[in-house]
Amino acid sequence: LRGPELDGGRFDLAAVYVSDAQHNRNITFDASPPSVRLYLIYNHWMLHVLVYVFILVDLALALFEEPALIPLPVWATSMIELICLVAFAVRLAHFAKVVPRRIFLRDPKNICIIVIITLCLLDMIIYGALKVSGNYAVRWSRVLRPLLLVNVTEGRQLRRAFRSIRNALPQILVLFFLFMFSVLIFSLMALKLMGKRNLETIEGAPYFTNYLDIVFDLYVLVTTANSPDIMMPAYNYSSFFALFFILYIVINTYTFMSVFLAVVYNNYKKYLKEEVRQLVRAKRQKMCHAFSLLKEGGEEPVVSKAHWNRLVRLVQPDITNAHRELLWNVSDHHNRGHIGKVAFVQLADLLNIQVITLKSRAHPLHTWIPAIYESAVSKLICRMVRHRMFVYLYDAIILVNAVFIGLDEEDPVVSSAEWFFLTLYVLEILLKLYTFEPRTFFARHHFWNWFDTIIIVSALLATVINAALKSCKCYTSRQILDIVFILRVLRLIRVVDSIQRFRAIINTLIKIGPLMLTFGQLILVVYYIFAMVGMELFKGKVQFFSADSPDPAREYCGNALLKDTLFARNNYCKNNFNDVVSSFVLLLELTVVNQWHDILLTHVSARIFFVLFHIVVVIIIMNIFVAFILEAFIIEYIVEKNDLQTSLEKKIEELNLCVDLLFSSLAGYSTMDGLLQRMFETGTDLSAEVIADTSEDMNFSNPSFSPA
Amino acid sequence: LRGPELDGGRFDLAAVYVSDAQHNRNITFDASPPSVRLYLIYNHWMLHVLVYVFILVDLALALFEEPALIPLPVWATSMIELICLVAFAVRLAHFAKVVPRRIFLRDPKNICIIVIITLCLLDMIIYGALKVSGNYAVRWSRVLRPLLLVNVTEGRQLRRAFRSIRNALPQILVLFFLFMFSVLIFSLMALKLMGKRNLETIEGAPYFTNYLDIVFDLYVLVTTANSPDIMMPAYNYSSFFALFFILYIVINTYTFMSVFLAVVYNNYKKYLKEEVRQLVRAKRQKMCHAFSLLKEGGEEPVVSKAHWNRLVRLVQPDITNAHRELLWNVSDHHNRGHIGKVAFVQLADLLNIQVITLKSRAHPLHTWIPAIYESAVSKLICRMVRHRMFVYLYDAIILVNAVFIGLDEEDPVVSSAEWFFLTLYVLEILLKLYTFEPRTFFARHHFWNWFDTIIIVSALLATVINAALKSCKCYTSRQILDIVFILRVLRLIRVVDSIQRFRAIINTLIKIGPLMLTFGQLILVVYYIFAMVGMELFKGKVQFFSADSPDPAREYCGNALLKDTLFARNNYCKNNFNDVVSSFVLLLELTVVNQWHDILLTHVSARIFFVLFHIVVVIIIMNIFVAFILEAFIIEYIVEKNDLQTSLEKKIEELNLCVDLLFSSLAGYSTMDGLLQRMFETGTDLSAEVIADTSEDMNFSNPSFSPA
Repeated sequence: LRGPELDGGRFDLAAVYVSDAQHNRNITFDASPPSVRLYLIYNHWMLHVLVYVFILVDLALALFEEPALIPLPVWATSMIELICLVAFAVRLAHFAKVVPRRIFLRDPKNICIIVIITLCLLDMIIYGALKVSGNYAVRWSRVLRPLLLVNVTEGRQLRRAFRSIRNALPQILVLFFLFMFSVLIFSLMALKLMGKRNLETIEGAPYFTNYLDIVFDLYVLVTTANSPDIMMPAYNYSSFFALFFILYIVINTYTFMSVFLAVVYNNYKKYLKEEVRQLVRAKRQKMCHAFSLLKEGGEEPVVSKAHWNRLVRLVQPDITNAHRELLWNVSDHHNRGHIGKVAFVQLADLLNIQVITLKSRAHPLHTWIPAIYESAVSKLICRMVRHRMFVYLYDAIILVNAVFIGLDEEDPVVSSAEWFFLTLYVLEILLKLYTFEPRTFFARHHFWNWFDTIIIVSALLATVINAALKSCKCYTSRQILDIVFILRVLRLIRVVDSIQRFRAIINTLIKIGPLMLTFGQLILVVYYIFAMVGMELFKGKVQFFSADSPDPAREYCGNALLKDTLFARNNYCKNNFNDVVSSFVLLLELTVVNQWHDILLTHVSARIFFVLFHIVVVIIIMNIFVAFILEAFIIEYIVEKNDLQTSLEKKIEELNLCVDLLFSSLAGYSTMDGLLQRMFETGTDLSAEVIADTSEDMNFSNPSFSPA
Repeated sequence: LRGPELDGGRFDLAAVYVSDAQHNRNITFDASPPSVRLYLIYNHWMLHVLVYVFILVDLALALFEEPALIPLPVWATSMIELICLVAFAVRLAHFAKVVPRRIFLRDPKNICIIVIITLCLLDMIIYGALKVSGNYAVRWSRVLRPLLLVNVTEGRQLRRAFRSIRNALPQILVLFFLFMFSVLIFSLMALKLMGKRNLETIEGAPYFTNYLDIVFDLYVLVTTANSPDIMMPAYNYSSFFALFFILYIVINTYTFMSVFLAVVYNNYKKYLKEEVRQLVRAKRQKMCHAFSLLKEGGEEPVVSKAHWNRLVRLVQPDITNAHRELLWNVSDHHNRGHIGKVAFVQLADLLNIQVITLKSRAHPLHTWIPAIYESAVSKLICRMVRHRMFVYLYDAIILVNAVFIGLDEEDPVVSSAEWFFLTLYVLEILLKLYTFEPRTFFARHHFWNWFDTIIIVSALLATVINAALKSCKCYTSRQILDIVFILRVLRLIRVVDSIQRFRAIINTLIKIGPLMLTFGQLILVVYYIFAMVGMELFKGKVQFFSADSPDPAREYCGNALLKDTLFARNNYCKNNFNDVVSSFVLLLELTVVNQWHDILLTHVSARIFFVLFHIVVVIIIMNIFVAFILEAFIIEYIVEKNDLQTSLEKKIEELNLCVDLLFSSLAGYSTMDGLLQRMFETGTDLSAEVIADTSEDMNFSNPSFSPA
């Protein structure tokens, strides 16, 4: 370890290690002071945001490029793309300055970014040249864009998800081949049993006579999209044929699809567990680095309270003194004034536990107008608002309001009732602000207070604007009315919070919610790639005409091949690949799976494209989604607080006994890493094992660690 | 314990306890010798089979009763039902003789059977009286019939499944209400946003104007059955409305449905675990009873080898001496000649492990014609058959055969090729029988040998019959040809066994297979009840006319209300409740969910019926199915053999070293109870805990049990 000699530099470096451990950053940076300074800049949140802004702009270019939703000239989009590419290159150069050269070049994600930037530039040049010379050109590099999301330093969780998928792939593939074998065997049987019976489909086409068509139809049946239509001709001919389809559905639709879920779930969990193990190991290693920078004493090295305080202030400048004092008390059980390595290593996890410190402050009105606020009437009001009946009363009001919303809003009684309800809601908020201390009321963890206030204030504003526009009769905006309606309905959600049993589920969902962002990115990457390929292959094949268009081509979506097909008859013309928004909506429909065989054209290349999409998105990714929800929900619902949180709470209780200063609510981990770590720490000896490993790796002195 | 004084009686009673423990029977029978004898008769397998035969006959009556598939006069079906009811009553009376009266009357399942029999009789009388007097009558007691399946003594596993569902119900209901709340809120928003825009569905009906219709449509969207049709009018009007549907699908279709799975999975597992805990406890208790009957010695009671042998022979008369000796060796590690309570208690589990003992016998031909069988040519043949290339060769033949099956079988080349392939397959079996010892070849656990031989022999027979019929030109049976085709295709499945990675999955599926019988019964009970109710409500509403019927009502399924509906246009007329077979097929289609909104008539009572069916079958039961597969597959795939199996295998290895007599394959547990026990024993201290409990309960002397 090439450590700095300066004492201040030593603290700076230790703070960086702790901060990295806290946020699970895993970058092996150069430990020299200038590099550390560059590294701190590299990790600034503004730069992270900027990276994502540039990626979003780069991805959003698809809206303006051919086939475009809003066409822009090629030079404009190319210019924007060029700026984005330069930004990525600068970011990468910055990273190269921070990290030792050897490590930089060995890291596949850096290589990936370099390759992507190069290929994008190349494609731009080729495309420009071909266009200028009037040739046909394809912007093939567009499929590479979402890969940036995976390969930037910030995309750690996304990379982890992809790694898990890659590792699970062999087992999924084996199962898939077995499943396809079953489909092929069933198809052969269907051909032999029904092919010679001269049956007809509802469209009058021959039924089950072509082997490949049967395979495709039965594959679609696995997704249930053509049930029961595919069965009806055979079933109408003889009830015995229903047996064939029942067997097929039980084996392929139910059993195989469940086994897919089992394999995906199992593998995903297994590899994620291994990843988390490495994550925890890396975290401890960094904390050990920090410890070795600050340690004092010979036989059993320790860190003193003063050093520890200085370090924590460097890592988290906005931490309150009370909070810091609490964390120290948890670390130093025995009040020795210094802590050993084991207690020090906990610091990263301790900093990750949200402790909301709230002083029981007096109400501002109590300070300003004590005479009035302390009067009997005022006290009565406060008692009323705090009473349970107040909650029930407003729940009843919401239910009555729901009925009024359902009625026709053009009725004058209903529209004046709306003002009445709005007044009641505003009154509720004012009463609550009168009773409760405003800063407590709007504390970060009071989700429903925030929700209520935002909804009511926006509804008030929108209703006023709408009424103003209506009374001056100059302009009636449908959009504002829509917003008013949405806000009115959203208000009703509040009633959920009053029911204890609903609240538990909702809270779990709210907690899982942000963690699904990673999943959203995963879907975005896959959708984007499929959308780009789909647009190149199928753009313009299907045209959408608005309802009042006089064009006769409206009947068959502007494609003569679609005449009299179910696609045209069901009015699916807007399900096309003509721009990126339509493509995304279409891909969502394909994810939902129903009617997908009707949505696709009967062209063979379309079938291959869609089957591929089905395998990737429905069989693999949606199963991972289900696996994720399954695991996260079970964990959140079942798992108790972990050791660290328990000891923190105990300490808070102790302090409350003597100090009565802190009211705290442990909001639990709120990051993906935190949840993951929690998922796999519980019930296992993971942390003990990891610390033992780390100790061995680094030749430290006290391997006899046992978690409290 | 009122134990018998006679020594023989003591052994009989102990054998009954062990047998009960082995088969997880949980009946508190009277311990007096006459009762024990009656109890043994009660548990005879023939009576179990008879009970199920009577239940099946009783259930099958639905085929012959109005609305009937094959109509029989009312007096005939009533007579059969009467016989069945008498049989159930006799069985119950037998049970009452076996069990102490106090316990008999406290058991809800006996009360249930009494009530069901009484109500069925009552219904028969009322129905008869009403029919004779020419009134309208309903056979309402038919919905009670499947409940017999649950309440007979043999339906232990089914009762357990229902109990698990009942226990999970409160949580599922809370979640369901929350989910319905979400659907209602979204519906209200849809009404407000799209109701006033004068949009039209593809049929020209007003779009999203009636609140209850919207709720129903959006409920159907959760099942994905009407995607994307329900979205198209709004999406065609403005792309922004796609956002509404995307949000709806993400929240309700994906998140809520996954959370349903999570809650069902979690609860099912939790309660099943508790049930298994009780099961194991009851088993140990019975073994302790048996032990206390046979124990000798004072301070630390033991059972001698002679007594143990006598007991095992009583429990399992067909056990081989070698197998019994092996089990004794496992129980008595230290060769003391007697075993303590802990080792004795294991006996029930030991007996449940399938040990297939196979003497390495000489081939019969070797005994009969040693000169020829030992000749160089014969040895060469044997070496060839044992060679890996032989397997590969036949795999190649199967693949070529697959191509020929796909071709038109009326081509003379193809049909003669069929004879060629058949000869090859027969030759394969003959060669294998020549090489391997026939009894080894047809051992019970050689699934694929059995499969091959049965398929090939049947194919040979069917092909010969078919050819004979064809050559005499007197009669061409389509049915025989169908069977020939099915057998031909089934032959191809064999190729799966050659691929190592496929075999692991297939073996797991084959193992789980029989365990799904309980699940099949669960489905049968629910389907039967819904079918009975559906038939009373909807019989005759939809008529099916065969394709060559000249009746004009064929166009609209004989119901004028269905004119020009999607139902009639899609030719769904055979999806009706006119007989019990059609009802079951229809219910299966509703389970698959697709198109179910088109299948049902637009009548409100039908909607309620189908939504109820969806909640019960799709949300609860199918999720349990998925949960079951998930758990079973993960366990089978991951979990190693348990302690008992390992120690048994070790012992076998030891014995092999000196005796070289046994070749054994541990086929694992093959009962539902076994798998369940294995599911929850692994990784927990269940067995240790349970034996500690039992010891305390029964005041035995050695609670210091530790599993090997």
